[in-house]
Amino acid sequence: MRYREVDGAREYVARLEHGRCWRGQIEAFADEEGIDAAFFMGLGAVSDATVLFYDQDDTEYGSVEFDEHFEMTPAVGNISWLGDERFAHTHVVLSREDGTAVAGHLDTATTFAGELYVREFDATLEREFDEVTALDLWPL
Amino acid sequence: MRYREVDGAREYVARLEHGRCWRGQIEAFADEEGIDAAFFMGLGAVSDATVLFYDQDDTEYGSVEFDEHFEMTPAVGNISWLGDERFAHTHVVLSREDGTAVAGHLDTATTFAGELYVREFDATLEREFDEVTALDLWPL
Amino acid sequence: MRYREVDGAREYVARLEHGRCWRGQIEAFADEEGIDAAFFMGLGAVSDATVLFYDQDDTEYGSVEFDEHFEMTPAVGNISWLGDERFAHTHVVLSREDGTAVAGHLDTATTFAGELYVREFDATLEREFDEVTALDLWPL
Repeated sequence: MRYREVDGAREYVARLEHGRCWRGQIEAFADEEGIDAAFFMGLGAVSDATVLFYDQDDTEYGSVEFDEHFEMTPAVGNISWLGDERFAHTHVVLSREDGTAVAGHLDTATTFAGELYVREFDATLEREFDEVTALDLWPL
Repeated sequence: MRYREVDGAREYVARLEHGRCWRGQIEAFADEEGIDAAFFMGLGAVSDATVLFYDQDDTEYGSVEFDEHFEMTPAVGNISWLGDERFAHTHVVLSREDGTAVAGHLDTATTFAGELYVREFDATLEREFDEVTALDLWPL
Repeated sequence: MRYREVDGAREYVARLEHGRCWRGQIEAFADEEGIDAAFFMGLGAVSDATVLFYDQDDTEYGSVEFDEHFEMTPAVGNISWLGDERFAHTHVVLSREDGTAVAGHLDTATTFAGELYVREFDATLEREFDEVTALDLWPL
C-alpha cells in the first residue's frame, strides 16, 4: 500500500443546500475554501441520482440513473485535484421507502438535505493517470 | 453549501453495549460527556432494526421494521441538539447472511455488538425547523 | 456504552495496491507503521470479495463468496490487536453495474483500486474474548 502521513488542517461541518447537486456543491465549497486534500463523510437525502460503475475490463465508467427519492446512507469521499479542477470522489449508498438500497460512485444527485464532516489535510493531492487501472489515482 | 469551520475537541473509541438500543446509547453517552457537536462512524451487528425514510412530498417519516439479525455496514452519523435533547442522527446499512442489504435512517436497533469512533467539535450545533424541507437542520 | 477518550495521533491518506487483498494490505501497513489503534474509512473497487456474517445464535461466522467486480461504497473499519496480530475489522458495501449492492464484514477482496483515510490514536486496543457474544471485543 502506498501512503503518506499527513498533518490534519481545518475541519468543517456543513449543511448541503436543497436543490443543488450533492457533489457539485462540495467541489464549489472546496474551491471557496482552497481545500487541496480532504476526506469527508456525510448523510442526507436526495431526490434523484446518477451513479457510476467502473467496468474493470473495458476501463470505462457506465452510469445508472435513478429518478427516485432516496436517503443517503452514507456518503464517504475525498477532495483532491483532477487536472485543473478540484474533484470530490464520492461513493454513496441510497435507500428507498422499503429499505432496499442501491449504491455506487456518485456522479450527480439533487440534494434534498445533507450533513457533512470534512477533514482537511495540510497537503495537496493531485490525481495522475494510472496505466494499470486506467483511473486517475494519487501518486503517493 | 452552508458550513462552519470547527475546532476538533475530544475523540473517543467506544464499544456499544449488547442488548441496548444502538442510537439511544450514543445519545446517553453524549449526555454523560456533554457533547454538543460531533460526527461518528461505526460498525457492528444488531438483532433487529427500525429504519425510517423521509417522504419528501408528504414531509413525513415512514418506518420499516426488520425482525432479523444484521451486520451494520456501516453507521455514519452526528450528534447535535434537537429541542431540549441531544439527538444522534444515524444512517445505517444492514446486511444479511446472504450479503443482501437494507439501509435507512436508524430509529431503533438492538445492539449485538458495536464499535464507534466519535469526533467531537468545540461547538454547539442546534437543529431548527427548516421551512423548505420540513426537517430540523443546522442553521449554519 | 463503554468508551475511552483517546488522543489523536498520526493521520494518513493511502492508495491501496492493485491486485492485493484489501484487508491484508491495511494490516501490513499497520505493522509497518506500528499502529496499535485506529479507525479508517475508504472507497474504491474490488474484483471479488468474501464477506462474513456472524450468526448470533450459533456464534459462528458464515461466509459468502462473490466472484464479481464491485465498487466499494464505502469501507469503514478499525485497527487493533487480536491475539498476537494486528487486525483490520472492516465492514463494506459493494455495488454492481446496475447499482444493486451487497454488504458485510470483509474477509478478503482483491483490490482493483482504493483510497483510505486512517486516523491513529495514541492508545493500544486489544481484543479479548467476550462471553456474551463469543466475539473478540475491546475491554474498554
